[in-house]
Amino acid sequence: MVTQSWEAKAEKARERLARSIAKEWLLDKSSCPSHGRLNVMDVPEESGRLSVEEILITNSDASGLVSKMEIGEWTAEQVTVAYLKRATIGHQLLNMATEFMVEDALAQARALDEYYRQHKKLVGPLHGVPISTKEHISHKGRLVHASYVALVDNVAAEDAFLVRLLKASGAVFHLRTNEPQTMMTGDTENNLTGRTKNGHNLRLANGGSSGGEGASVSFKCAAIGLGTDIGGSIRIPAAFNGCYGFRPTACRLPYGGVFLPGEGQESIRCVIGPLTRGIDDIELLMSSVLVQKPWEEELSLVPLPWKSAATSKNITIGVMWSDGIVNPQPPMQRALRMTVEKLKAAGVTVVDFEPYKTAEAMDIITSKQGSIFDSSLDNLLTYIALFFPDGGKTQWDLLKQSGEPVYQQSRAMLEIAREITVAENWAYNARRDALRNEFHSLMTQRGVNVILTAPYPGAAPLVGTVDYGVYTMLWNMLDMPALVMPVGLTVDPTLDRKSPSYQTISEYDKGQFDKFDAEDSVGAPVCVQVVGKHFRDEETIAAARIIEVALARTAVVPAL
Amino acid sequence: MVTQSWEAKAEKARERLARSIAKEWLLDKSSCPSHGRLNVMDVPEESGRLSVEEILITNSDASGLVSKMEIGEWTAEQVTVAYLKRATIGHQLLNMATEFMVEDALAQARALDEYYRQHKKLVGPLHGVPISTKEHISHKGRLVHASYVALVDNVAAEDAFLVRLLKASGAVFHLRTNEPQTMMTGDTENNLTGRTKNGHNLRLANGGSSGGEGASVSFKCAAIGLGTDIGGSIRIPAAFNGCYGFRPTACRLPYGGVFLPGEGQESIRCVIGPLTRGIDDIELLMSSVLVQKPWEEELSLVPLPWKSAATSKNITIGVMWSDGIVNPQPPMQRALRMTVEKLKAAGVTVVDFEPYKTAEAMDIITSKQGSIFDSSLDNLLTYIALFFPDGGKTQWDLLKQSGEPVYQQSRAMLEIAREITVAENWAYNARRDALRNEFHSLMTQRGVNVILTAPYPGAAPLVGTVDYGVYTMLWNMLDMPALVMPVGLTVDPTLDRKSPSYQTISEYDKGQFDKFDAEDSVGAPVCVQVVGKHFRDEETIAAARIIEVALARTAVVPAL
Repeated sequence: MVTQSWEAKAEKARERLARSIAKEWLLDKSSCPSHGRLNVMDVPEESGRLSVEEILITNSDASGLVSKMEIGEWTAEQVTVAYLKRATIGHQLLNMATEFMVEDALAQARALDEYYRQHKKLVGPLHGVPISTKEHISHKGRLVHASYVALVDNVAAEDAFLVRLLKASGAVFHLRTNEPQTMMTGDTENNLTGRTKNGHNLRLANGGSSGGEGASVSFKCAAIGLGTDIGGSIRIPAAFNGCYGFRPTACRLPYGGVFLPGEGQESIRCVIGPLTRGIDDIELLMSSVLVQKPWEEELSLVPLPWKSAATSKNITIGVMWSDGIVNPQPPMQRALRMTVEKLKAAGVTVVDFEPYKTAEAMDIITSKQGSIFDSSLDNLLTYIALFFPDGGKTQWDLLKQSGEPVYQQSRAMLEIAREITVAENWAYNARRDALRNEFHSLMTQRGVNVILTAPYPGAAPLVGTVDYGVYTMLWNMLDMPALVMPVGLTVDPTLDRKSPSYQTISEYDKGQFDKFDAEDSVGAPVCVQVVGKHFRDEETIAAARIIEVALARTAVVPAL
Repeated sequence: MVTQSWEAKAEKARERLARSIAKEWLLDKSSCPSHGRLNVMDVPEESGRLSVEEILITNSDASGLVSKMEIGEWTAEQVTVAYLKRATIGHQLLNMATEFMVEDALAQARALDEYYRQHKKLVGPLHGVPISTKEHISHKGRLVHASYVALVDNVAAEDAFLVRLLKASGAVFHLRTNEPQTMMTGDTENNLTGRTKNGHNLRLANGGSSGGEGASVSFKCAAIGLGTDIGGSIRIPAAFNGCYGFRPTACRLPYGGVFLPGEGQESIRCVIGPLTRGIDDIELLMSSVLVQKPWEEELSLVPLPWKSAATSKNITIGVMWSDGIVNPQPPMQRALRMTVEKLKAAGVTVVDFEPYKTAEAMDIITSKQGSIFDSSLDNLLTYIALFFPDGGKTQWDLLKQSGEPVYQQSRAMLEIAREITVAENWAYNARRDALRNEFHSLMTQRGVNVILTAPYPGAAPLVGTVDYGVYTMLWNMLDMPALVMPVGLTVDPTLDRKSPSYQTISEYDKGQFDKFDAEDSVGAPVCVQVVGKHFRDEETIAAARIIEVALARTAVVPAL
């Protein structure tokens, strides 16, 4: 047998992607944005390739789509076609897809319409909602490679459990999206289908690892996206793309059928979660899944039904202005300040929340001997050794198997990853549990229901410069539900100036401060992060609603 | 500094124990049972050292004690004294204590009585209930050594979390009990306080590792006992001593403050659970703890309140007559047959339940390369390497530190324990999860709510011959709640004869069959095991009640 070169293998993935695209929906050259244009978010509308109704459909969130289909105003097929068309343009501009599933999606949609015609009701709460999925979430009979060239011929035996449950709720799967090599970096690029771009500013990082989903959801190529998150992989792309991203507490959403070499790692669990264009859709997804009692099939799940929490202003929000290592940059500070002001104006109790043992949390998750903060290292995303307790052997072996080039981001991480023994792993588990208990108890002592903080020091930085994951990883380490949401601001060089008298608080802070330039990130949306107590996913979402209402409320001229 | 010999260190533990005994409650020589007497269970009554009321008190279960204290018929002090007196005798005969806490218990009891006098109500649902605890469950300010001579001077900084919660419910802690070296063997003997005996027949094994609790509860030295179970350590002593023992699903009862070198091992979690003299008391303990929401303090717990399940005969009980490797011995077969007959007579649906992948379950839990059943090994308790993924280094180091002699049972286990890598550990975790999912789904497919099976191939065997843990370890591996309960039978050589034509089903079966002799175990109580689905602790207990009612019901002459 002739051994294929890695290039030939990678070409297979690109061919599969190319074949899956419906060419008639591509923009012709004349509709493509001009060279040098940075923000391409409005191209679908400008192109004239979508009808007014298709624009309405793709502007609608999942909850809105379902209500229109319930009254028969839109069909599932219409909705699917509209999203497929927009997704085709989205991919053309942002390189976000790994595969379109046009025929399957249309067949699903037609079957839903047929059901609706016969029974005069919807199949389920997600009837006809187009959902995109990060590539490593399995679809039966389709290839799934987790972005490893070596695995380009790997076929999924079954749908991921979550995909199966969502199909039972009526969801339509039309699109699979891109992710980075090794899945552990904060931006999205691999040797199979390349790099995914940020539609708000093509010079900026799109985020990762669920970067394809960040692009898909913000560009309205899908109503909901499914990503995975072990250190921020849902929330970073949500933050960089200006959409919503939710990392639920571990063991609530079914994880079976997520293809990720190294399964069985439980010290910091990778979780699956939604990216959306609104809070309602996060709740819609969570409730649609949990009403099906997935814990009856995936025993590692906790049997907690979804119980929507009351949205009561009678909560206390603690603002963590900084993680204590790197302070947020001017646009993020502005977003946090504005949010706090509007919350206070709306009568919500907001208190300062001092960061607590951030360094200890990072030492645990990175499993470094001694503190990582004692070393002069400049990329805190590279030391997440507790995710690689075999010293990255699983990843190295796969990379070497095909001989594909190793990206600098992967290499930096894998070269530092250190093999730990089972006994060391236990000791980290015990420290992890102690810190989780302490942090929870601290919130209770301080009377704080949820924490408001940054998801990243700033908005999306330039491509290739994503390098600080502490604001997201902290909550993976603590296993707390965390939701990223836009606040309606974008980076503005006239407002987001660095103060020349700024005193840096650490070497890392200096690094981030020095490289920040608002001109780079102009137009990038700014998001904040809302973090709830362990297992209080419902309350976290309710708190995010309060914030959203407050943000909208004071924007309106008060009545006399 | 002079290094102490292990003997001198061990002597400290014995001195502490001796000092803690109230000498006035000891039996004098004349009341001690005659040499050669095997069953000493009735000695307290025969001795005349307990008043009639004290006998009534110690015959009462926890629920009964509380109801008497509620109406003011007994005081907590009276109850505590009665149990302390009986426990003193129990220890004298069975060597079950590591420490009495007479002064503390009496002070607790008096404070409870004072509260009752002032407020005319009980402190909580366990007001005045004397509870004994396995030695490695911490009590603030007291030594805790987990039976390692090297740790004989180790002082607990805090009460174990469960102890604290139970104190808040009104429980009184008066007695700490014995456990074996390394805590991983099926009987109870160590170099500090020696071997604990079985009061039903002094020649028989008392079980382990919560052997002191098995003796304490069955001899009525405590109303409730707290043990720990990672492979059967609650259920084996319950089975050998003829009391009730419950291993809840992991992450329901708080585990913090259990002192066991090697914390952070999560692949097969060690759990804490009760030994009792009735089903009501198991439920009383579980509900008293969970009503206090321990998950607010110990974050690894699952936030599931205790919801008593309806005791409905409308369930299906699957009888697993054998694990497929070793068939139950004649007394156990008789107990299972009788239970099934009585259940059927009571109108309960009972079906056969074929064992499922027992060998795979054991291969996972033992982490042996290849199948353990391919080797000619005769002690299946010795291969639980998934409990020792550091190859037993933690244990060896502690044993070597003091130089204490290593018991043959510990040695056999630790010599075979093999260090596995983190990556191997992951692979076992994944196989474990797959089997858990399969088993649960199989029960659903077969329409079986709970499984009735043996807890051990037979009743208590001779001292030194406990060597088969599959009937209990299986449910730790599957993380299913499992309850051991007596059925009212004891081993009877006239009924429990071996059939000369018996066909053994495996090498292990032959080993067990060959060594079984009903004469050895004469008088030993026979218990069965009721196993429920993952997280359905409440339903498991409800099913055990159905079995108990059925067992009692047909013993009564039917009305005409």
